[in-house]
Amino acid sequence: MSLTLVVGTKRWSSWSLRPWMALSATGAPFRQVLVELRQPETKAKILEYSPSGKVPMLDDDGLKVWDSLAICEYLAERFPEAGLWPEGREARALARSVSAEMHAGFVPLRSACPMDLAEDHPMAEIPDDVKADVARIDAIWTECRNRFGQGGPFLFGVFSNADAMYAPVVTRIRTYALPVGAVSEAYCDAIMAHPAMQAWIMEAKLAG
Amino acid sequence: MSLTLVVGTKRWSSWSLRPWMALSATGAPFRQVLVELRQPETKAKILEYSPSGKVPMLDDDGLKVWDSLAICEYLAERFPEAGLWPEGREARALARSVSAEMHAGFVPLRSACPMDLAEDHPMAEIPDDVKADVARIDAIWTECRNRFGQGGPFLFGVFSNADAMYAPVVTRIRTYALPVGAVSEAYCDAIMAHPAMQAWIMEAKLAG
Repeated sequence: MSLTLVVGTKRWSSWSLRPWMALSATGAPFRQVLVELRQPETKAKILEYSPSGKVPMLDDDGLKVWDSLAICEYLAERFPEAGLWPEGREARALARSVSAEMHAGFVPLRSACPMDLAEDHPMAEIPDDVKADVARIDAIWTECRNRFGQGGPFLFGVFSNADAMYAPVVTRIRTYALPVGAVSEAYCDAIMAHPAMQAWIMEAKLAG
Repeated sequence: MSLTLVVGTKRWSSWSLRPWMALSATGAPFRQVLVELRQPETKAKILEYSPSGKVPMLDDDGLKVWDSLAICEYLAERFPEAGLWPEGREARALARSVSAEMHAGFVPLRSACPMDLAEDHPMAEIPDDVKADVARIDAIWTECRNRFGQGGPFLFGVFSNADAMYAPVVTRIRTYALPVGAVSEAYCDAIMAHPAMQAWIMEAKLAG
């Protein structure tokens, strides 16, 4: 078995952080290829590995999977014992709904507050569309935690793909000092304390 | 069993068309709730049904699933006999990769060429970023058809969630007269001739 994950610069690549969290949660050994973003040769380098021209990309013994959410789905099938989707039908449907909502949405937040793991940028004035995104995210986290979070500190108790999908958002909440409710604050603490997140942030700061 | 799909105005709601194609492909009977988009009461109406404030939303006996891709994943699990994801591991990984790439990408194409099933808008000058999106989509369709399309006219032979995800793009190719290669042209013909697509377009034109 040979798993390789191609990721972008750890300080900025929010999309790469997601499958990195999910893959770490499986416990499977994997090789990492780091492509420096925002360099003249970035595009060409990524195309060497990834047919979509984007990171992240997972190579599993020659089988290539790309896009953060597709990799998370692939890993859930490939490592069923890791429980990357919740077991219950309702919990799993909710986990997929909020993961897909993140995957294609929250454009104002993502534009105004790009992931930056090397510096803090507390926001004095939060634009209304960013506020609306944060309020919706706060509602999602609170609902998941309240309905299905009994077995642990993550959205569905134990770590799942939904946490992988929202991990970059957690860093934005902290980097830009965006206010969320108590349930979401505790959830952010849990994600920030996750060993895979800690390792990623340490490398982001070293390289930054 | 009671399945309800909440969709937006058929002329414009590209995101609603996707699960409508997938749900139709299962053969399961379902109820449809139509919310007229671009009206003063649209937002309030959607929130009556959908916690994310967006269409489409699927209600399965009270279990709510939203976002087009999450609904497609849900239906694949709910109706395994419908084969909404290809059976082979490699084909399934590719189907999920290109579906997720569509779900979060191709912003230039989606902005410049919104779905409009009631009128043709042939484009005299195609902007470069739209051209790049169309070239990538053409490459995706051609690769899927060439590698896995032997068993039928769709991306992976028989109809799958990947076709549901790309069905709105097919309509844009036609509405805006965007040029694609021969393999992709034949694929567009197959999607346009699909009975569920034909029914959707007929209703879009009646209401438009």
